[in-house]
Amino acid sequence: MCGIFAYLNYLTPKTRREILELLVNGLKRLEYRGYDSAGVALDSADGKDMAIVKKTGKVKSLEDEIKSREKTLDFEGVTDSHVGIAHTRWATHGVPSEVNSHPQRSDVNHNFVVVHNGIVTNYKDVKLFLQKKGFQFESDTDTEVIAKLVMHIYTQHPNLSFRELVEQVIQQLEGAFALCFKSKHFPGECVATRRGSPLLVGIKAKTRLATDHVPILYSKDDTSVMQQDPETQNPDHRPHGRGEIPILPRSDSTAEFQPLEDKEVEYFFASDASAVIEHTNRVIFLEDDDVAAVREGSLSIHRLRRSLDDSHSREIITLKMEIQQIMKGNYSSFMQKEIFEQPESVVNTMRGRMNFETGSVVLGGIKDYIPEIRRCRRLMLIGCGTSYHSAIATRQLLEELTELPVMVELASDFLDRNTPVFRDDVCFFISQSGETADTLMALRYCKNRGALIVGITNTVGSSICRESHCGVHINAGPEIGVASTKAYTSQFISLVLFALVLSEDRISLQARRQEIIKGLQNLDEQIREVLKIDNQVLELAKDLYKHKSLLIMGRGYNFATCLEGALKVKELTYMHSEGIMAGELKHGPLALVDNTMPVIMIVTRDPVYVKCMNALQQVTAREGRPIVICENGDTETQSFASRCLEVPHTVDCLQGILTVIPMQLLSYHIAVLRGCNVDCPRNLAKSVTVE
Amino acid sequence: MCGIFAYLNYLTPKTRREILELLVNGLKRLEYRGYDSAGVALDSADGKDMAIVKKTGKVKSLEDEIKSREKTLDFEGVTDSHVGIAHTRWATHGVPSEVNSHPQRSDVNHNFVVVHNGIVTNYKDVKLFLQKKGFQFESDTDTEVIAKLVMHIYTQHPNLSFRELVEQVIQQLEGAFALCFKSKHFPGECVATRRGSPLLVGIKAKTRLATDHVPILYSKDDTSVMQQDPETQNPDHRPHGRGEIPILPRSDSTAEFQPLEDKEVEYFFASDASAVIEHTNRVIFLEDDDVAAVREGSLSIHRLRRSLDDSHSREIITLKMEIQQIMKGNYSSFMQKEIFEQPESVVNTMRGRMNFETGSVVLGGIKDYIPEIRRCRRLMLIGCGTSYHSAIATRQLLEELTELPVMVELASDFLDRNTPVFRDDVCFFISQSGETADTLMALRYCKNRGALIVGITNTVGSSICRESHCGVHINAGPEIGVASTKAYTSQFISLVLFALVLSEDRISLQARRQEIIKGLQNLDEQIREVLKIDNQVLELAKDLYKHKSLLIMGRGYNFATCLEGALKVKELTYMHSEGIMAGELKHGPLALVDNTMPVIMIVTRDPVYVKCMNALQQVTAREGRPIVICENGDTETQSFASRCLEVPHTVDCLQGILTVIPMQLLSYHIAVLRGCNVDCPRNLAKSVTVE
Repeated sequence: MCGIFAYLNYLTPKTRREILELLVNGLKRLEYRGYDSAGVALDSADGKDMAIVKKTGKVKSLEDEIKSREKTLDFEGVTDSHVGIAHTRWATHGVPSEVNSHPQRSDVNHNFVVVHNGIVTNYKDVKLFLQKKGFQFESDTDTEVIAKLVMHIYTQHPNLSFRELVEQVIQQLEGAFALCFKSKHFPGECVATRRGSPLLVGIKAKTRLATDHVPILYSKDDTSVMQQDPETQNPDHRPHGRGEIPILPRSDSTAEFQPLEDKEVEYFFASDASAVIEHTNRVIFLEDDDVAAVREGSLSIHRLRRSLDDSHSREIITLKMEIQQIMKGNYSSFMQKEIFEQPESVVNTMRGRMNFETGSVVLGGIKDYIPEIRRCRRLMLIGCGTSYHSAIATRQLLEELTELPVMVELASDFLDRNTPVFRDDVCFFISQSGETADTLMALRYCKNRGALIVGITNTVGSSICRESHCGVHINAGPEIGVASTKAYTSQFISLVLFALVLSEDRISLQARRQEIIKGLQNLDEQIREVLKIDNQVLELAKDLYKHKSLLIMGRGYNFATCLEGALKVKELTYMHSEGIMAGELKHGPLALVDNTMPVIMIVTRDPVYVKCMNALQQVTAREGRPIVICENGDTETQSFASRCLEVPHTVDCLQGILTVIPMQLLSYHIAVLRGCNVDCPRNLAKSVTVE
Repeated sequence: MCGIFAYLNYLTPKTRREILELLVNGLKRLEYRGYDSAGVALDSADGKDMAIVKKTGKVKSLEDEIKSREKTLDFEGVTDSHVGIAHTRWATHGVPSEVNSHPQRSDVNHNFVVVHNGIVTNYKDVKLFLQKKGFQFESDTDTEVIAKLVMHIYTQHPNLSFRELVEQVIQQLEGAFALCFKSKHFPGECVATRRGSPLLVGIKAKTRLATDHVPILYSKDDTSVMQQDPETQNPDHRPHGRGEIPILPRSDSTAEFQPLEDKEVEYFFASDASAVIEHTNRVIFLEDDDVAAVREGSLSIHRLRRSLDDSHSREIITLKMEIQQIMKGNYSSFMQKEIFEQPESVVNTMRGRMNFETGSVVLGGIKDYIPEIRRCRRLMLIGCGTSYHSAIATRQLLEELTELPVMVELASDFLDRNTPVFRDDVCFFISQSGETADTLMALRYCKNRGALIVGITNTVGSSICRESHCGVHINAGPEIGVASTKAYTSQFISLVLFALVLSEDRISLQARRQEIIKGLQNLDEQIREVLKIDNQVLELAKDLYKHKSLLIMGRGYNFATCLEGALKVKELTYMHSEGIMAGELKHGPLALVDNTMPVIMIVTRDPVYVKCMNALQQVTAREGRPIVICENGDTETQSFASRCLEVPHTVDCLQGILTVIPMQLLSYHIAVLRGCNVDCPRNLAKSVTVE
């Protein structure tokens, strides 16, 4: 949560209007990461102070506020070299308000300002320390201690460089963060760093870059100028690889990245690529504890100390993402667009992997690890929210086709429990963004215990992607809507593909595999068919949207649809909805059923059909009036329903993909009818990068 | 669900008033098993027909109806020998109504009548068959086909005995059932049978019984008179033991159980012992596919065919349960009584097992299996509803102290998924009644695959008890309230005791074990302390009871309390409540939080305290007004709460026992304030003996 955006122009004259537009547009691209307040900091018109504008609400409010200050901000003034930083916030400590917005400052004179994404867990201790030194705090944020701390170190050690100051600061911090600093004392300089939260640097130069690697510089001595807790001594949180010890070239000689002779250059710091792609496609993804500093137009990347598996440089990657990929198109919201993209996104997930003619499946990202996976004792699927549901949806098929015990775990609970993990376990980490903090922490926990790590993400270059031994990229394309839709179906299919790969060599499973492969082949057409009932779903939404509660019941392969459907309704409509295992009905939830409680039941012609019909009859026996999602033309089931939505029949283990889509549509329509913001539900952010 | 009660007097003169009182009182004892309608059948006053009285609603309605028919029923008429059958229903097929109530009849002339507990899954096929034969159906029940089918066979084969007719019938039935039959053609005879649902026979005679075993008779030929599906050929559903082949004495010579020379005797057939204990303490628990028949005062037990592990007789057991154990005492409801019994019931669970002086733990019921359990590869805990929550509550401790992978499964989902189970797995089956159908089916599934089966039940002689290799009786005493309370805390403690036994030999775990043992020692006093906040909880209930929804959040050791608390509120108050993993808050549920949604958060000083505080602050940052359950005197946590309930501090892994009690009390008080029936919540029954 929270989006960071910073812009540095060097020898590239810009008006202050242009700079402010750049910053505000960058924030707009990042708005899905948080949108309860926003702010920018830039040099004041006279160059002697800083101008900070902050506003609660969405970025649009900030934009209006900036426009109203056109005079004092001196829109037409031109600067050759300048640093501006900006932030869109998702509150964790302190309610959304202007004083709690970022940038946070060291003092009223704005010696240092900082924007922050993440949570500093030891902020109370640091705050107490600084209060004893006489600092007065104005906000409730954890971020303010960072701004004050850098000021404190600066007054103690006025000879340290800006980058060295930041290095000192992060040695004192615990928790997760991405940070961008700006200072009156270091005009034209920007320092950025991260640990746990994502951050990248975009580079824009008029001519070709001299190199596509930026070397890493290591500090000559790594002692802190402040006393510190031995627990936090090792700032490098990346666990070691599985036994490989790379040979490290000594590259300290290369000093800095100087793109061009005349050095004209612009830099962008952002939480993700969507904010920079309209300016440049050349980016560096920073690693944990990298400190990136720009000074006189030159970018350098520093680390306090070298660890065995460090690479000696950071690659400048060329992004292939197109700007239109992150635009809404003709849809009213990103989420709606993403729901309707599913016929294409599921095909993209299978593209180049599934050969329907030969019935063979290849997952390039894990190919080399298949023998090791086949020898394992247990599969563990770990995720949060929607990703967790994709694991539940495919667990049964994985059990069937791999004949291994399969455990599905919520990342947060998995960590809370210190779950036993063994060297012969294979652990899957599922996350759309690849940055979900709990999932990432669980990954590191399992990696430390010697398990094989498989990442299932939608984001190339994300932390989970980089720290896995192998993985599957779900290829669903950028997902902007906070409520995940197409990523869910693509995660689902990725796990099905994995099950197919693992069962390739089993004669007795061939018939089942062929049935599933045939199902996959028809899936895009069947999704198109489901999307045609959009109007029926809208009519249903009109009946439901004023209710307070909604129960969604099912079992077997469709249980995940109940959980995921309920989560969508919760997230988007703020209606209390709950997914209920139909088998548990008689153990409690049936008490909720009467002729006023809206109940949706998912009943398809799979091996648990008879049991589902029992549940359906129990609900009608209690005067419930169930809305049933069933298969096309299943009149027997429909005779028990007060109304129904029909989806095409497919193989049992894929049916959940077709039944979840009406739920996605329903949550969308209810949200619109209730006047909720579909893409930015209250209190939520897209990528949860704190625990 | 459903309660069966039948009474047969032989050479024991009774007025019809006495017989009706006996039947109605029997039903009242069984009312917790279902209470949406009730009925009785007895011989008509002239002895030529049958009198059937049925009434929707609770047993009281039936009683009033019977009283209003005093004349036609001929209350003062005396019969020497007579059979009466009675039933209290919990609807599964067909809404509660008089025509759907039991006894169900073969025709308007009442040739055969039957009472049934369970669900016949193939009733549609049987109904179609009978309709083709010209039978007209009057009800929507699955039971009616049984009454019609026995009539059909009788007309085809008029020379078969009553017992043989029933044997023919059950060969055609699929599903779960306990049945009691009465017929005009066999006056003074009663035939009862079961498969999957519980049934026992109580025997009352004036003098000492001649034997304490009733031999089993096997049919000479086991061919059905009807064509049948080969799938249903084996009526014996009991899986074989783990390799033991008992030596079978041939005992077919002993013909029948004849208690006394002059044969004066009374028999009771009932779904459980609570209905017969006031008449006799001598009972036989029937096994699946036993057919018990009484003819001329003699009881015989038949089976169609012998299987290898059959015992050759059924033991007549002497029950030690006292009648006052099943009375309410001074409490307004059984549930309230059971909540307040917990200081004693938790001690009863530990009695004779836990030696606090030496710190040793012995579980007699599994002692001999400990070496085998230690060698296992995995523990699986399987249950439904509250029992499932007790598994979640103790999973982390089991993982910690056994260092084994521990899987927790909902029985219904476990079966739906055909989960892989292996010979080196140890599977725990948790059920208060020991009769929960899904749990029992899961037990049989695992037993067939060679796993070691451990039962955790509250009911001696229950199916799970009998079919396990070993087990722990939780000793909580009879639980009558439909919503489980004391059984939960006792299940919890039983599993903690098991973890202590498994870790006995580990030096590194001794300190942890001692800490837990000390916690167990103080638990009863601490529960007494928690119960003292009853009035505070009542005040809180007054604030909450008009709300539509309630969210209960926590994580780590307290997550199970959230699930269990939410289930209690659902069951008793029909308010939509949901237990939410606090770690998942940011992945969706936080959207529900605003200043109107009631939120309860459980925050205790355990290893996840800091994370819980994060969640608490997120809720307050979104204007939520959380009610916090925390530890005595924890003012830091309380400063974030809108109000709070305090419980004493204990060791982390036992804290869930203390935090669940305020939730039990809260659900009780809200239910009373909302005018709900606490002991008999709508739509629910105590023991769920159908899938």
